[in-house]
Amino acid sequence: MYAVNLARYQRYPDCKRRGLRALPPLALFTSKECHYSIKKGAAFLGLGTDSVRVVKADERGKMIPEDLERQISLAEAEGAVPFLVCATSGTTVLGAFDPLEAIADVCQRHGLWMHVDAAWGGSVLLSQTHRNLLDGIQRADSVAWNPHKLLTAGLQCSALLLQDTSNLLKHCHGSQASYLFQQDKFYDVALDTGDKVVQCGRRVDCLKLWLMWKAQGGQGLERRVDQAFALARYLVEEIKKREGFVLVMEPEFVNVCFWFVPPSLRGKQESPDYSERLAKVAPILKERMVKEGSMMIGYQPHGTRGNFFRMVVANPALTRADMDFLLNELERLGQDL
Amino acid sequence: MYAVNLARYQRYPDCKRRGLRALPPLALFTSKECHYSIKKGAAFLGLGTDSVRVVKADERGKMIPEDLERQISLAEAEGAVPFLVCATSGTTVLGAFDPLEAIADVCQRHGLWMHVDAAWGGSVLLSQTHRNLLDGIQRADSVAWNPHKLLTAGLQCSALLLQDTSNLLKHCHGSQASYLFQQDKFYDVALDTGDKVVQCGRRVDCLKLWLMWKAQGGQGLERRVDQAFALARYLVEEIKKREGFVLVMEPEFVNVCFWFVPPSLRGKQESPDYSERLAKVAPILKERMVKEGSMMIGYQPHGTRGNFFRMVVANPALTRADMDFLLNELERLGQDL
Repeated sequence: MYAVNLARYQRYPDCKRRGLRALPPLALFTSKECHYSIKKGAAFLGLGTDSVRVVKADERGKMIPEDLERQISLAEAEGAVPFLVCATSGTTVLGAFDPLEAIADVCQRHGLWMHVDAAWGGSVLLSQTHRNLLDGIQRADSVAWNPHKLLTAGLQCSALLLQDTSNLLKHCHGSQASYLFQQDKFYDVALDTGDKVVQCGRRVDCLKLWLMWKAQGGQGLERRVDQAFALARYLVEEIKKREGFVLVMEPEFVNVCFWFVPPSLRGKQESPDYSERLAKVAPILKERMVKEGSMMIGYQPHGTRGNFFRMVVANPALTRADMDFLLNELERLGQDL
Repeated sequence: MYAVNLARYQRYPDCKRRGLRALPPLALFTSKECHYSIKKGAAFLGLGTDSVRVVKADERGKMIPEDLERQISLAEAEGAVPFLVCATSGTTVLGAFDPLEAIADVCQRHGLWMHVDAAWGGSVLLSQTHRNLLDGIQRADSVAWNPHKLLTAGLQCSALLLQDTSNLLKHCHGSQASYLFQQDKFYDVALDTGDKVVQCGRRVDCLKLWLMWKAQGGQGLERRVDQAFALARYLVEEIKKREGFVLVMEPEFVNVCFWFVPPSLRGKQESPDYSERLAKVAPILKERMVKEGSMMIGYQPHGTRGNFFRMVVANPALTRADMDFLLNELERLGQDL
């Protein structure tokens, strides 16, 4: 929401005072794999969910830049003014990374604000081995990053990084409340960040990141990221070895998506109700693991795919033994299905 | 922002999808003593700060209902559609309580959503002695309340209370993300509150209030509120006894606003530069107390009044000795001025 608000303000500074009714209809673009907060934010900001144009993604969940071009032309033909593209680095379900260089080219060509929702995948930048997944992010106008996700900082710890050097945050959000942002303080009042943000009374969430970074060092955080990748890889290889497990796809991140196929469904892929019956397995196992108290693994449907498990490997305390336990436990809980 | 978004959605459900461009120009009303978040929120929500119509307040900082009526007629005459009134219970600087019954009458007459910003003063409802300050709040459509202020719950702890029983929050904010709000869970999914709110990953801030309430009981919290009022009253009486202190006004809440008049300015009220020189005193004393490390008391200008101190008595650990220290310390720090 910050990024969208900044982008529209930069283009139409007048909207702070006069509102959206003074503007032409705006259009922003994101892939069908984007986080649901994009549409939610568009509604909240008064743009309306219709202003969000959904760009196609490939079978791995990555935005297709050619379709982005097409959607931009389509929006313009309908009289809307494109102003922002939201790329995703680390989609929620599949963990996909959009092709940022190609998207940046499109943004540059059309003069659009490039936002990267790297809430989930942004921490990968700390890894020399894997950071190439985010190639092109340096061209973004804004990046959202949640150290409370992959780096496991305490909830909440969210950062918005901006390319801007014109004090856009201050211009866009400043309200000069005279009882708070006095100009006659004895220090440089440019250091007061309060007037740059939307919230007033709020926690100093950045302190958690600073402390963690100081304590772990860049290398310590890099190890966490690399270890998560390695453990996800281990889980994938173990899944391939076991009869009752089917990968949804080879992951490129630490989202390991798979089906557990219970004994009664094995070898029945050709039967007409196979998918329907398989989709009912995950909710049953989820109920059993919750009641047992042994694990908490999410599941969801996705496009035409029925419910599958999504094991997100992030906690640095996890070990290979935990991955083995996870698979054994699913087998145990589902042996009668 | 939640309340404004809910109010406009209730009147124009279509705006969630189509945005504000599909609506007539909207107008909301609040007093000139309101919190700065109202205008900030109006800009963020795409309404624009011009949509906020400022209603006059009396000399004690309370909204004048007759002027509210006038502003509503004025807005309508200009072609705007009034939809919300934001009353304040406990203004930031003076601690004023708007006359809620009279404001509720106006809202009822015009069919407007009545929101009460009781972020600061809402906790007064816990006091049998002082709760009459909020008479009429039961007629509000929505109330914002921050237990992290007067009740000193840990930052952040903010509540939005709604009169609505139609599940408006769900309709307004729901986005049915299929990977999160699965309908095939084994318990009643109506218990999932996640889809009702704007944020996704967030702390369970309500737990702090629940724990505090359990630990202190209603009477314990009432004592905190009553004690804050009593201590503020003590400070006021002490201020009246001392030569170098002048009350801005008799407070009705725990905001004690006063000037410290240094020796060189005493008895000089008639001199033409008195106000100007007095306004420079608070910033100097603030610098001195910060560098000394002895206190932190805010100051601000207010309307035509130059800088004055605002001692907000909230911390339940404060005692009369602390109030005496405060006054002694100001005298000590300002004796050469």
